[in-house]
Amino acid sequence: MTGTGMLSASVLAAPPPPPLPVLDRPLDAEALAEGLRSFSTSYYANHPFHQLMHEGRLTPRQLQGWVANRLAYQRAIPRKDAAIISNCPDADVRREWMQRIVDHDGTRPTDPKGSPGGIEMWIRLGEALGVPREEMEDERHVLPGVRFAAEAYVTFCKTKPWIEAVASSLTELFAPDLMRKRIAAFPEHYPWIRPEALEYFQSRLVQAPRDSQQGLRLVQQHCTTVESQRRAFEALAFKLEMLWLMIDTIHNAYAE
Amino acid sequence: MTGTGMLSASVLAAPPPPPLPVLDRPLDAEALAEGLRSFSTSYYANHPFHQLMHEGRLTPRQLQGWVANRLAYQRAIPRKDAAIISNCPDADVRREWMQRIVDHDGTRPTDPKGSPGGIEMWIRLGEALGVPREEMEDERHVLPGVRFAAEAYVTFCKTKPWIEAVASSLTELFAPDLMRKRIAAFPEHYPWIRPEALEYFQSRLVQAPRDSQQGLRLVQQHCTTVESQRRAFEALAFKLEMLWLMIDTIHNAYAE
Repeated sequence: MTGTGMLSASVLAAPPPPPLPVLDRPLDAEALAEGLRSFSTSYYANHPFHQLMHEGRLTPRQLQGWVANRLAYQRAIPRKDAAIISNCPDADVRREWMQRIVDHDGTRPTDPKGSPGGIEMWIRLGEALGVPREEMEDERHVLPGVRFAAEAYVTFCKTKPWIEAVASSLTELFAPDLMRKRIAAFPEHYPWIRPEALEYFQSRLVQAPRDSQQGLRLVQQHCTTVESQRRAFEALAFKLEMLWLMIDTIHNAYAE
Repeated sequence: MTGTGMLSASVLAAPPPPPLPVLDRPLDAEALAEGLRSFSTSYYANHPFHQLMHEGRLTPRQLQGWVANRLAYQRAIPRKDAAIISNCPDADVRREWMQRIVDHDGTRPTDPKGSPGGIEMWIRLGEALGVPREEMEDERHVLPGVRFAAEAYVTFCKTKPWIEAVASSLTELFAPDLMRKRIAAFPEHYPWIRPEALEYFQSRLVQAPRDSQQGLRLVQQHCTTVESQRRAFEALAFKLEMLWLMIDTIHNAYAE
């Protein structure tokens, strides 16, 4: 009785392993970008829960469980971005990275014409899916596994070199496709959801490409050795694992 | 369509909520101890995976998945104990707390008559269950959810006041019962496991009562206000949640 064969766990407990390249010499900027993009096969868009979502096969309860839980992740984002800024010695990078915090926390409280911000948009999506604002905000539905995953991401960004935390943000390379699928699928399959509620997905269609280009450029500039490139790939693999764990936890908890 | 009722998640996604007492005034030392002990209803001994284990209903594959994954937790323990020491200004506490690191890391490498330590004993248990040492040590079987849970515990002990981290260790109050169940169940239900492999459980029968008395005494001494007692209860609740998440992740991943 020896391990490996018998010991295979559920295929959903972790994402498909990403194609970590063999790095016997540093990749050029183009090949590095291509290598990072090739990790899309481990993106949580490929998890069955998202496939069911986009095929219109989730129940209102499952959508509600998803939206209420994912708020914990939305709320972690500005904190992880602040952690990156706190570790970064380059004022130009810090200044540019600030926009991400603004995008999530919004500007409306001080500017009536400002943006409500990604977190508030997410709460509104929750309301449109039938979860009262109070139940979103007090996080009563947030599962331990989801909370731990979101906090693991903040801790990663606090404790790793800033450029590795930047590399971990590159799942944004894969986000626009996922947003486009949702924007198409929701009105078609879940017509009871008000279209205005999809504002968050629309906002990410603009922000994610801009942000991922910024992140990719920084990784290309700063990761020019075998060791630093290996760490960039590993950081992205960590983030993909975190997102996958989050959706798998939701999938298990709200299975019908 | 409003939340709570419909939104109930799988009952296994989180432990049964512990009985957080209403604290309108500080509890005396005795009542505080009793209150903390009453959290045993949320201990992961109550998770179905452990019940199956003690009834002899786990397959070798499930036992192997469990033992290989739980090593990640065993390895986190000396790191979380060092984090507690790193935050503690009291030399007497630090000196006493060191024993926990020694218990897990062992003394044999420098003293041939010393103890192999809890981590090494756990690896031997893994070998006895059929997981080769190499597969234990390289953590190839460790699931993301288990790794995140173990790391969340280390992060908790790094970032919270030392006395809250001490309170989180009080799941040791509940450990001896669980160890006794295992020591009885393994030879009866899994006779193919060498009895020497159960050395880890035997060692915890001695260490856990000593350690939990030490931890309880510190919490009684230092948590004498409503606020500090509330934090002690919350710290223990966090730890119970972490242990539960770990076993539930294993349960899901190796379901037969």
